[in-house]
Amino acid sequence: MLEPIGRVRSPYREKFGVPRQPGLAPSVQATIELDGGRIDPQALRGLEGVSHLWVLFVFHGVETASVATVRPPRLGGNRRLGVLATRSPFRPNPIGLSAVKLLSVEGLALRVAGGDFLDETPVLDLKPYLPYADAIPEARCDWATAAPESLDIEFSRTARDTLAERPDRDSLRRLIVESLRWDPRPAYRRRDVDEREYGVRLADSDVRWRVDGNTLMVTEIRPAP
Amino acid sequence: MLEPIGRVRSPYREKFGVPRQPGLAPSVQATIELDGGRIDPQALRGLEGVSHLWVLFVFHGVETASVATVRPPRLGGNRRLGVLATRSPFRPNPIGLSAVKLLSVEGLALRVAGGDFLDETPVLDLKPYLPYADAIPEARCDWATAAPESLDIEFSRTARDTLAERPDRDSLRRLIVESLRWDPRPAYRRRDVDEREYGVRLADSDVRWRVDGNTLMVTEIRPAP
Repeated sequence: MLEPIGRVRSPYREKFGVPRQPGLAPSVQATIELDGGRIDPQALRGLEGVSHLWVLFVFHGVETASVATVRPPRLGGNRRLGVLATRSPFRPNPIGLSAVKLLSVEGLALRVAGGDFLDETPVLDLKPYLPYADAIPEARCDWATAAPESLDIEFSRTARDTLAERPDRDSLRRLIVESLRWDPRPAYRRRDVDEREYGVRLADSDVRWRVDGNTLMVTEIRPAP
Repeated sequence: MLEPIGRVRSPYREKFGVPRQPGLAPSVQATIELDGGRIDPQALRGLEGVSHLWVLFVFHGVETASVATVRPPRLGGNRRLGVLATRSPFRPNPIGLSAVKLLSVEGLALRVAGGDFLDETPVLDLKPYLPYADAIPEARCDWATAAPESLDIEFSRTARDTLAERPDRDSLRRLIVESLRWDPRPAYRRRDVDEREYGVRLADSDVRWRVDGNTLMVTEIRPAP
């Protein structure tokens, strides 16, 4: 009955590194490409008066079956909550919900910012954000009262040199900073001492980094294999 | 792939009269009954710390196929917008999205307030409202900048007498006032002079009313047939 109406093209090419909520990487852009076989361009008429969109999507690349409880990363991975009390993808129906900023519409392609979508994510629906019905600043969620703690991001000399040579240096730098500052590591790796080097694919780059205390050092930026 | 996890039990027994957005009838209560065959009660653990929920549901009783454009009632029914620029149910995938206040959880039954659900609405997912990611008070939707205009509600002597005899008079009165003040009439009926008497089923009552200018008069409250 419910079939995707399009897909997201996003710089997040693997689950590792995808922000854990929308809005955490506010300037990271993605494109929602609607399927011309299903959507008439007239269905977008009026979106020029809309600043933010709800995107309903199918969690992509989630193969694990639904579970009753999960351990949210922000609780250090050691407290269990019911999956319906969280935004975990391992839900009975793996539908995601994210508010994004709508930047532009061209034909059936919508440019958006602030999403937390894996590349190729199937989209089920788009809705205008209605502030009078959807904005509830006084809402309370005890285990997630604010955005998570973030890391300081530094770039090694090598990484800075690579960035300087890139024509897309500004957007790539923002993509790296806004994505990595939320610490993509699993909770059990967030120890005081972590010697490991990590790599994450962001757009067409393989970004290498280490964490020391509250500082994440980008050591190298390589072309993705 | 996506199957309902439960249903809503709501006092709205017919589409006519259902608030056109969540939050417009803030004290009207409904119960979300989850399906024990699909949901483990543990999946709700932690909801006691959550004040508001997103409910993702399938628009119920909507048989019309998806359309490219619609005429939103609040624009007087004479301006066409693309369906994806509105919250109309006639969407490519008929999924609804409503934020409700969570009042209590008992077993697999969640008591909520402020919903805009038709009775028997199938529920696809429940998510905690995360204010830091979901509340965007600065969002802009040009054609729906605030709640719609509302009518003044008055009760005839007959209707007041009926209410006075009802043990549920306070909740029934709130249900009537909060539902009818948004003027359930189709846009083309909202003329200066409208002689018609309307009836709407609210909970177990058939509520009769007329509109004169900006005043809606509840003429009679009968047991529903």
